[in-house]
Amino acid sequence: MSGQTQYICVDWGTSNLRIWLMQADGSVVAERRAAEGMQTLSREDYEPALRRHLASLCGSEHARAERPKIMICGMAGSRQGWREAPYADLPASLSGLNEKAVSVDNRLGADIRIMPGIARRDSARPDVMRGEETQLLGLATASGDEAFSGTVLMPGTHSKWVEIVNGRVTDFSTAMTGELFALLSQHSILRHSIGGAKPGVDPQSEGFQCGLERAIDRDIGLSRGLFALRADGLLFDIAGDETADALSGFLIGREIMDTLGRQRPDSVTLVADEAVGGLYSAALGKLSIKAELIEASALTRAGLLRAAKMIWPCDKERN
Amino acid sequence: MSGQTQYICVDWGTSNLRIWLMQADGSVVAERRAAEGMQTLSREDYEPALRRHLASLCGSEHARAERPKIMICGMAGSRQGWREAPYADLPASLSGLNEKAVSVDNRLGADIRIMPGIARRDSARPDVMRGEETQLLGLATASGDEAFSGTVLMPGTHSKWVEIVNGRVTDFSTAMTGELFALLSQHSILRHSIGGAKPGVDPQSEGFQCGLERAIDRDIGLSRGLFALRADGLLFDIAGDETADALSGFLIGREIMDTLGRQRPDSVTLVADEAVGGLYSAALGKLSIKAELIEASALTRAGLLRAAKMIWPCDKERN
Repeated sequence: MSGQTQYICVDWGTSNLRIWLMQADGSVVAERRAAEGMQTLSREDYEPALRRHLASLCGSEHARAERPKIMICGMAGSRQGWREAPYADLPASLSGLNEKAVSVDNRLGADIRIMPGIARRDSARPDVMRGEETQLLGLATASGDEAFSGTVLMPGTHSKWVEIVNGRVTDFSTAMTGELFALLSQHSILRHSIGGAKPGVDPQSEGFQCGLERAIDRDIGLSRGLFALRADGLLFDIAGDETADALSGFLIGREIMDTLGRQRPDSVTLVADEAVGGLYSAALGKLSIKAELIEASALTRAGLLRAAKMIWPCDKERN
Repeated sequence: MSGQTQYICVDWGTSNLRIWLMQADGSVVAERRAAEGMQTLSREDYEPALRRHLASLCGSEHARAERPKIMICGMAGSRQGWREAPYADLPASLSGLNEKAVSVDNRLGADIRIMPGIARRDSARPDVMRGEETQLLGLATASGDEAFSGTVLMPGTHSKWVEIVNGRVTDFSTAMTGELFALLSQHSILRHSIGGAKPGVDPQSEGFQCGLERAIDRDIGLSRGLFALRADGLLFDIAGDETADALSGFLIGREIMDTLGRQRPDSVTLVADEAVGGLYSAALGKLSIKAELIEASALTRAGLLRAAKMIWPCDKERN
């Protein structure tokens, strides 16, 4: 034992839980994952689930440890989750988010906090994030400059585009790109064209490039561009793989066009894994926007640890 | 018996069949409907199905009638249908479509023709229609001016926008609006917001108007506007009915904006039933575009009869 202060960090989302026992220096002592999330848990299920994971994560060490410090982010903090952690409003300081974390009464003898999400309360275009704010805090910490400025793009089921000025989230916007891709390829008329296409999309493929061209160069709108993919299959005998690539390119191109309009930054920070990052880099490249790719996987953990250390400063930092 | 020439007209689509025994003057002698379409029929199933319907449609009259004249439109003419009726290319003369109808060999002792669809063979934005061309011919016939010009909007699962100049289809475009509404309200994250909303959308409702405003006045793109509907529910406790209305207004507004761009006609001919027609009239009204509503239901039949009479002129017209 190093004697360092330990923290328990939990990413508790819609369908999954990840939990880490961490040292103050960022090293991971132990980790667990489970397919337990908001969709399957009722409010009363959270505490027993956490007790179980704590027992196997910390073992006997847990028994003799001081009061566990547990930092949670994600959908566990939504209204349908464990305890609602109200949204912080724009502009939201990343390094101040911990002040809005809610404390959860529990019978685990633990100090438990849940991170707030962030809301854009504008009736013309309301928006919310929950979980991404913690990744953004992790990004700020990892960059070594908590007062950084720039556009951050976090693609996925619900892609987030975030404007950050001096470490504060000043605006953001969500596009349902990943969800639309899944819906359209599995449930729409396009499923006939796509068939059992290979998983994974190739950003260099003709299909992906054709999809991008329709969205970006020709600015064809989403609702009519989708049917063009169907007509491709009927008129030009396009293969299923190519239609899937084209759907991906078209949706990503539309996301970028719809989000940026004519105000295009020179560069964005792209928080993604390598595969998705490659697709968005290729798409942004068509508009001469530089993408700096940051691997998404470690950022949530880094953000949770940063928030935890602000709430419970470790001995070394206290002195 | 009037002694008039009789025609059998068939609208044979993806999931349904409608068949009419008609007089040359347009009166309907008998009619049948069945849930038999391209999705459930294999190529060999079409002839027996038609034989069955003919027997009950025409009864003993069929036995003594001269060789039946059968005019078919819809997906029965697609590659996956009964017999492929290749697409006519743009520009396509409506009153010349019958010349491209294909003849189907059969053991029913009948003269059977299937109407062609129309294709836009442009790799930048390919498009197809099959069935709507017959409605358009019906529209031209009903208007009394087969050389009419104008923009025709045929909303539905796949909305068609058609440019007609002197009775020729010069361009068209399809938006997947109806399909997107069904997909998104049943399968996407928005289903949580919509819940068991009432069927039917009210064009005067606050939700529908808010959806239109986001699409038309604020020009918010489709992929990000959809997530705003989710955020509405989370931030402002919007009811399911209102979210469904807003989704409808937003999708219809986007369809119009994406299709027209900045080239907006003063008026369009809107081929729809009263409910859907009301929604599109309200949306077009926001852009000061006048909509002349034509009931869709009788147009397919009128178009089939017109094509049949061009192929097989009736005695009266022959003299």
